[in-house]
Amino acid sequence: MTETRRQYGPVADDIERVGQGLSDLASEHHPLLGAALKHIFSAHGKQLRPALVMLSGKLGTYERNRLVMLAMALELVHTASLVHDDTVDEALTRRGLETLNALWSPKVAVLVGDFLFAQAAELAARLGTTHVMTLLAETVMAMTSGELRQQASSRALLIDEGDYFLRISGKTAALFRACCQGAGLVSEQSPECIEALASFGTNLGIAFQIADDVLDVTGDEETLGKPAGSDLRQGTVTLPVILWAEDAHARDLEAELQGGRNLDDVIESIRASDAPSRALSRAAEYAAAARSDLSIFPGSEAKDILEDLTREVVSRHR
Amino acid sequence: MTETRRQYGPVADDIERVGQGLSDLASEHHPLLGAALKHIFSAHGKQLRPALVMLSGKLGTYERNRLVMLAMALELVHTASLVHDDTVDEALTRRGLETLNALWSPKVAVLVGDFLFAQAAELAARLGTTHVMTLLAETVMAMTSGELRQQASSRALLIDEGDYFLRISGKTAALFRACCQGAGLVSEQSPECIEALASFGTNLGIAFQIADDVLDVTGDEETLGKPAGSDLRQGTVTLPVILWAEDAHARDLEAELQGGRNLDDVIESIRASDAPSRALSRAAEYAAAARSDLSIFPGSEAKDILEDLTREVVSRHR
Repeated sequence: MTETRRQYGPVADDIERVGQGLSDLASEHHPLLGAALKHIFSAHGKQLRPALVMLSGKLGTYERNRLVMLAMALELVHTASLVHDDTVDEALTRRGLETLNALWSPKVAVLVGDFLFAQAAELAARLGTTHVMTLLAETVMAMTSGELRQQASSRALLIDEGDYFLRISGKTAALFRACCQGAGLVSEQSPECIEALASFGTNLGIAFQIADDVLDVTGDEETLGKPAGSDLRQGTVTLPVILWAEDAHARDLEAELQGGRNLDDVIESIRASDAPSRALSRAAEYAAAARSDLSIFPGSEAKDILEDLTREVVSRHR
Repeated sequence: MTETRRQYGPVADDIERVGQGLSDLASEHHPLLGAALKHIFSAHGKQLRPALVMLSGKLGTYERNRLVMLAMALELVHTASLVHDDTVDEALTRRGLETLNALWSPKVAVLVGDFLFAQAAELAARLGTTHVMTLLAETVMAMTSGELRQQASSRALLIDEGDYFLRISGKTAALFRACCQGAGLVSEQSPECIEALASFGTNLGIAFQIADDVLDVTGDEETLGKPAGSDLRQGTVTLPVILWAEDAHARDLEAELQGGRNLDDVIESIRASDAPSRALSRAAEYAAAARSDLSIFPGSEAKDILEDLTREVVSRHR
């Protein structure tokens, strides 16, 4: 937490309040649910989404308690979607912890995910504005549609860039957008500023997801905790794969693989190509667009940290 | 639909609007999602929940469009929970139609359920009042906790009446309550009337679920579309089973079964006992309580139909 604390400077204490609020929720419910929630919230990550909420809020009227509540709601949405993803993917671990479906059962995991979505809606309703409610609902709809798109396209292994960007816009960028735009609403910013924050969140989310997809191809098994190329192994075609396939005149990847090419060979070939670094350049373009979205705001410590984040989401993958 | 139309008299047209609204939603989305939604909404049932919304609304200021929207939202919640139940139970059919998990995959089914919950929240937010949002969120939390309780207790096969009532209050009665209470809010009724409607919905829901649980034991395979006693076969202990076990001095059903008693024999023994009719008497008591909740309202056609429903949910199972 120390590095996170330093990095998030003026909002570090309030980000901890978000984590504390989530832990408190866990102790209020049915023992099975409480145990499940505690298990989930014990896996702390970079706290990127709460940080986006609190920092975006700092650019307006910093309504601490309301922003903490919004961050809790969106972190619950994020967690619920991970729980459901792990369940349907039959994943046994996440960040080194057993998943709920592994620890209890897929049934418990689906129900806990549903509960978390509902708890998120309940917190959002406490904010007393239907704008935030609508944003939350539309975000979950976008995330789910994005995943369904992935589900529909992963069968064919045929995918183009347009489809990829639509998919990650729903899957990842929608939640980043909701963090920034929602904080803009709660901190009572002007329509222009709220729109700038929404665009910032979208661009940052796309940059983040591209970089994540590149890391899946280029990382080593030790860092990733899974074999390189696991997305492709699960039938998910990402930007580095698309760019490689275009170059290799092998657009129809399925035919390529059915033609007898070994998946390990394909992944090695992608790693050795310039496709990963070209994909990272695209991520850097989105990160730059995110920085430019911030130009409407006067200089501040929070703005500086948000700009740093746009660089970090790309560079951590180099 | 003709019988339903006649039964629901003054709100029959508006109940059809609810169904139409849901069909229209289906055509707005990603083809896979649209196909899934159409598939779900093609299975029309008794429309009991939309009827509760519209009839409860008739007792106040009948805001047609807002009540239709509320009924759509709650029908989406109901559908989402059925989709998730079928997925985790690995059910292949419901009401003679293939389930989404059978037709597509468990992954698609979980995502579609999530989407439906979010769409419900989005519709509820359009009503512009955070009271309805909170009610919707709390209802899903109660339904999910109820199912988790069932999940936690079905392992042990040890259950007492208190636990059973807590479970069905969450599992079924919470949604009935939300239909009536939500309609009271939307139709701008007095706090006393809204509270009476909430209590009516809870009592009716409990009566409905007990009667449903009795039917599972006493029905024949042809009517049920599954073997009698399927709840118990899946490890779910319901009121007729509890009452039988008390009588038979066989409170520890698990020991009983492990003692070598055949499940078919146990179910036959329950059917032959007076436990089902005693359970139905309990259902009738809740139905009577529901009728008494309505005493606060002056006589009207809508009130008469609601009273009829309290009798029907019990008698259809005799």
